[in-house]
Amino acid sequence: MFRPEIRVLDCTIRDGGLMNEWKFEKAMVKEVFHSLAKAGVDYVELGYRADKSMFSPDDFGAWRFCDEEDLREVAYECDTKVSVMCDVGRTDYSTFLPSDESIVKLYRVATYVPDIDKAIHMGKHIKDLGYEVSVNIMAVSHALEPDLDEALAQLAQTNFDMVYVVDSFGYFYSEQMHYLTEKYLANLPGKQIGIHCHNNRQLAFANTIEGIIKGANYLDGSIYGIGRAAGNCPLELLMGFLKNPKFDIRPIFDLIEKHFVELKKDLRWGYEIPYAITGILNKHPRAAMAFLKGVHGNTFSEFYDELLNVDDV
Amino acid sequence: MFRPEIRVLDCTIRDGGLMNEWKFEKAMVKEVFHSLAKAGVDYVELGYRADKSMFSPDDFGAWRFCDEEDLREVAYECDTKVSVMCDVGRTDYSTFLPSDESIVKLYRVATYVPDIDKAIHMGKHIKDLGYEVSVNIMAVSHALEPDLDEALAQLAQTNFDMVYVVDSFGYFYSEQMHYLTEKYLANLPGKQIGIHCHNNRQLAFANTIEGIIKGANYLDGSIYGIGRAAGNCPLELLMGFLKNPKFDIRPIFDLIEKHFVELKKDLRWGYEIPYAITGILNKHPRAAMAFLKGVHGNTFSEFYDELLNVDDV
Repeated sequence: MFRPEIRVLDCTIRDGGLMNEWKFEKAMVKEVFHSLAKAGVDYVELGYRADKSMFSPDDFGAWRFCDEEDLREVAYECDTKVSVMCDVGRTDYSTFLPSDESIVKLYRVATYVPDIDKAIHMGKHIKDLGYEVSVNIMAVSHALEPDLDEALAQLAQTNFDMVYVVDSFGYFYSEQMHYLTEKYLANLPGKQIGIHCHNNRQLAFANTIEGIIKGANYLDGSIYGIGRAAGNCPLELLMGFLKNPKFDIRPIFDLIEKHFVELKKDLRWGYEIPYAITGILNKHPRAAMAFLKGVHGNTFSEFYDELLNVDDV
Repeated sequence: MFRPEIRVLDCTIRDGGLMNEWKFEKAMVKEVFHSLAKAGVDYVELGYRADKSMFSPDDFGAWRFCDEEDLREVAYECDTKVSVMCDVGRTDYSTFLPSDESIVKLYRVATYVPDIDKAIHMGKHIKDLGYEVSVNIMAVSHALEPDLDEALAQLAQTNFDMVYVVDSFGYFYSEQMHYLTEKYLANLPGKQIGIHCHNNRQLAFANTIEGIIKGANYLDGSIYGIGRAAGNCPLELLMGFLKNPKFDIRPIFDLIEKHFVELKKDLRWGYEIPYAITGILNKHPRAAMAFLKGVHGNTFSEFYDELLNVDDV
């Protein structure tokens, strides 16, 4: 698959940080950025811009906050752009520098459908500072259709650059990916559509391909699939699929060999039955993460039955 | 997804046996069959019918041969049918009993496109004995299109029951699955089409779904995805996707918890970079299996470059 408009965004540190409170060593993050630049990855998302009055730097690693000086220690100005994510309701507006003073090129605003007004408010603030802006609408498998339509109509009125189809719970398969990608494209003329998938049912890479087929050009992946719970679309599979000659898969293999095979044993993202169960049932993975930490003493089948009988998410 | 014609075939023991020379304990195989019967799985494939003059019972477990008395020790007559696979060129015709003397209901003839005449010859012998017969055309990603068309034309003339689309190398994604499923359906009127996928690029479940969407009704899965190299479509994901009320996913979760989580650590099937590389490059996984056994001393990147420069399969 080759389409010149395609852009790959690596979210290894940002989404992977959900598994270790963003406590990645600086030297390793630097190696990740430099290797991904060599691989031709278009964007590297190095973490969240979280509000320090809400999250203590004593409890979290540097990539929870992405201070400018930390970013500059690991990244450099090149064709590979630095991305940072910010959550609606957890971000201090005063921490955004004017874009010409920052190494960051893209901010991605993560929001739920009911918070879309707040997301647009924050996105405008960031856009006015000169950055690229994406809005990533999470948990859309729990959204009511008219609410989603209204959110897209509001986003269509903005000058933001991208809007992402996000499968937060690893619940979608091709038919929903087709439906949502086509809906976003039709309702957001002039904007790029992105795809961010979770791998609970081993469908993150497949769903990303389906997004590409329908016209999404911004594609999230993470090294060896690292990310919350079952993780994300493995970047190496995505790069092996894309035929754009600017990409080189080898630096990603090298990173996996040097760091991520071992890291996976430690952080334990990836396919496991409790994550499959929350994916099958369209539930947030937090119940599965608690189960795996032994908070529930149940069997897989009991966990399944328990979730079947829970109405909330 | 619910379609009354859909049938699920579990190939845990047969394809999983490729990872341990079919040395599964009889008590475990019996538990697998009984649990899958409780789960409502339609067929359970318990192994291969290999020629003992070619493969010594000293070197392989019972499920390499599937003698009638061994099958009867682990399975019983019920709605869940026993399936056995036989390879063209590795099977002793004299070992097939008349179907009314056997617990086996289905034989699946595994063949490459160039061996289709031999496959049809063996299939006719088995069909005449009163069994259901499937032909599984392997390695179709290496077949020439006119040869495949000719093979399908010949199969259309038989009274066999099913023909399988097989992604031996885990190379296909949705577009090839659509193309091949539609081709098989169009060229094999009156026959059922099956799907058997390998998981090198984490696409086995996704590709099985794409086969279903296009009209395939016979679906292979294996418990926790066990199978050669990267393994197969995880049965639990397939059962979680199908909405036929006759299916119950819980006995499969119980088997995974009791046996297959540990077994996976020992036999090491599933997603690993060398398997991803052979999948990306449309190669047989044998090179990856050799790499993982340390036969090659190379890095992932060197392994990738080595395979890139190899013309044979």
